[in-house]
Amino acid sequence: MDCLGGDKSPEANVEGAVSALRRYSDLEMILAGDEDVLRTLVRKHAGSEEERRLTYLHAPDVITGEDKPTDAIRFKKDSSLMAAVRLLREDDSIDGMISSGATGAIVAASTLRIGRIEGIYRPAFCPVLPTMNGGVVGICDSGANVDCSPLQLQQFALLGSIYLQIVFGIESPRVALLNIGTETEKGDLLRKEAYPILENTKGIRFCGNMESRDLLSGKYDLVVCDGFSGNVLVKSTEGACLEMLKMLKRDIYSKKIYQLGAFFQRKMFQKEKEFMNYQNYGGSVLLGIRKVVVKGHGSSNANALSKCVEQAYKMADQHYESRLQALLELNPVSETNES
Amino acid sequence: MDCLGGDKSPEANVEGAVSALRRYSDLEMILAGDEDVLRTLVRKHAGSEEERRLTYLHAPDVITGEDKPTDAIRFKKDSSLMAAVRLLREDDSIDGMISSGATGAIVAASTLRIGRIEGIYRPAFCPVLPTMNGGVVGICDSGANVDCSPLQLQQFALLGSIYLQIVFGIESPRVALLNIGTETEKGDLLRKEAYPILENTKGIRFCGNMESRDLLSGKYDLVVCDGFSGNVLVKSTEGACLEMLKMLKRDIYSKKIYQLGAFFQRKMFQKEKEFMNYQNYGGSVLLGIRKVVVKGHGSSNANALSKCVEQAYKMADQHYESRLQALLELNPVSETNES
Repeated sequence: MDCLGGDKSPEANVEGAVSALRRYSDLEMILAGDEDVLRTLVRKHAGSEEERRLTYLHAPDVITGEDKPTDAIRFKKDSSLMAAVRLLREDDSIDGMISSGATGAIVAASTLRIGRIEGIYRPAFCPVLPTMNGGVVGICDSGANVDCSPLQLQQFALLGSIYLQIVFGIESPRVALLNIGTETEKGDLLRKEAYPILENTKGIRFCGNMESRDLLSGKYDLVVCDGFSGNVLVKSTEGACLEMLKMLKRDIYSKKIYQLGAFFQRKMFQKEKEFMNYQNYGGSVLLGIRKVVVKGHGSSNANALSKCVEQAYKMADQHYESRLQALLELNPVSETNES
Repeated sequence: MDCLGGDKSPEANVEGAVSALRRYSDLEMILAGDEDVLRTLVRKHAGSEEERRLTYLHAPDVITGEDKPTDAIRFKKDSSLMAAVRLLREDDSIDGMISSGATGAIVAASTLRIGRIEGIYRPAFCPVLPTMNGGVVGICDSGANVDCSPLQLQQFALLGSIYLQIVFGIESPRVALLNIGTETEKGDLLRKEAYPILENTKGIRFCGNMESRDLLSGKYDLVVCDGFSGNVLVKSTEGACLEMLKMLKRDIYSKKIYQLGAFFQRKMFQKEKEFMNYQNYGGSVLLGIRKVVVKGHGSSNANALSKCVEQAYKMADQHYESRLQALLELNPVSETNES
C-alpha cells in the first residue's frame, strides 16, 4: 500500500489497510511512506493481530499531479510509489499494489518498471459504476490510453471481461462498444473498425453498440471505449448524479414543508447517498500489468481504500494472468496487425 | 416545419408551429407533409389568426433512421424533409427550417443542398443543457462530426459563442475544451493541438480545459468537443439524470412513509422534473449552414417543437451569419492549415 499521494493520505491508507487485514486473515501487507508516521498511525488503528501481518517500507517522498510522470519515475526514487513499485518488481512473493496517488505516474511506473502481461499492448483502467438494477458496469479503458487502435479496444474487452468474472462473479459479462448510436455502422473510424473485430472475438459476449445514456440501465456489464471517451463517460455520469443530489438537497432546504417531507424519507436518502457514493466501489484496477495494480480515487477515504485492497486480494487469488493468456490464445493477432 | 419523421409527428409538429405563431405575430410558417392530414390538424389546433400565416408544402414521403442519408437525399425527393430543404434553398424569403426527423439525413441534406457558410469546414450541432445555477451550457459539436481536426474545434468555439450570444443573451460566453483533466498539457493528440489554437483565437473567451464532471456546474457556457465525445457527454448526462429520477420514484413508491414525505414535496418534484425535461430546452441548432436549421429530438412534443421554432426565429432575426463572418475574419486560416 502506497500510503502517500491521496487527499486523505496517509491516515486513510493505513486505516483502509488495517480494515482489510481484519477481513482477510491470510492477507499480509507492506505500508510504504514515512515509517515513523506510519507506525504511529498503525498503533492508533490496528490491533496486535493486524500489526503482526504488517511491515514497513520507508520512502517519505511523494509524487504529485504536478510531477511529469516520466520524470517522477526517474528522479523520485525515494517516493512511496516508486519504492512500492520496485519492491513489487523484485519480490515474487508480493502480489499487488494499491495507490491513491498521481494517475499518470502509476500508469508509467507500472508499465515501465513492472511490465505488461505478455501479448498486451497497453494496460487499461476498468472502474465500475453501480447500475439502477443493483448490479455494476465496468468501463474499460477510462483514461490510461487517450489515443487507441481497434485492436486495443479488443484487448480492453478481454481484460475487462475476466476482471468482472473474477472480482464481481459475473459469469459471462455482456460487452458493449461505446458509440453514438446502436446501429452496426455507426461511429467514427475507430468504432467502425473495432466493431467487426469485437464481433469476431472468441471467449467474450459481445452485444453490439451502446449509447452512453444506457450506461446505468443494467443492460451491459462491460463498456469498451478509448480512454478519452471512457473518461468523459465516467466523469459526466458521476458529475450528473452528484449535481442532482446537490440540487435535491438545496431544494429540500428551501422550504420547511419540503424538509418535513424529507424527514419521512431520511432512510431512503441515506440509502441513495450510499448507492451513489463511489467510495463504496473501490478503485480502478490497472489491467494488463504483470502484477495487480489498483488505483484509488485521489479523494479515497479508508473505506474506499479497504475496498481497493479487497479488489487486489481477489485478483491475486484467482489467476487473472493465466485466464487472460487463455483468451489471448483464442484470439491470435498476426504480427502485421499489431498496434 | 418538416412535419414528418418524429415519434409524435405530425400532430406535435403542427401544434408546436401553431403555438409559436401565437407567440410571434410577425412569424409565418410553411408546413411540409401530407397536406390533407396537416389541414385537418391545423383546423383542430389553430385559430384563424394563426391559420392566415400558415401555408402548406405537400410532400407525404418520410425519411427514417433506416434510410442511408446519402441515398435518402438522392432518392426520397417527395419526402417532407427534402421538399423543405429544396424550398429553403430556392426561396430567399425563407429563413430556416425545423425538423425532428433522421439526424444523418438532416445533416447531409443541409450541408449538400443548402450549403455551408463561407469559410466553415463542417456544420456542427449545439444543444444546450440546464446548469445547476439556473443557466444553460452549450455543447458543440454533439454528433454531426465524429472525426474532427483541431481547426474544426476552433470553428465550433466561434459557431457556438455567437449562438449563445444571440439565442440565450450570454454576452461573452465562457468557452472550455472538453478534456480528461484541467491541466494545459492533458489529453489526446486532438486536444493537445487544439488547446493552443483556442488560446490564440480572437473574439472568444477561452477558459481552458474542462473535465466532464463539471458540465452542469455553471462554470462554463460553451464546451467544445469532437462530435463523438460530445455525444457521449450529452447522452450520459441526460441518461444519468433520468436514471436518478427513476430510482427516486421507485424508492418513493417502495414504502408508504416515503410516499407521505413525497406528498409534502410534490411541488418540488414537479419543478425538478420540469428542470430535467429536455423538451423545455428545444432542439439542437445545426450551426454553420447558410440558413437556420434546427433539429428537434426524435421524441419532441409540441412544447419542444415550439421552442425549436423560437430558436430559429431568434437566429434568423439577429444576423448570425454576418456576426460569424466578422469572427472568422479576426481569425484567418492559411490555406495550408485548412482541414
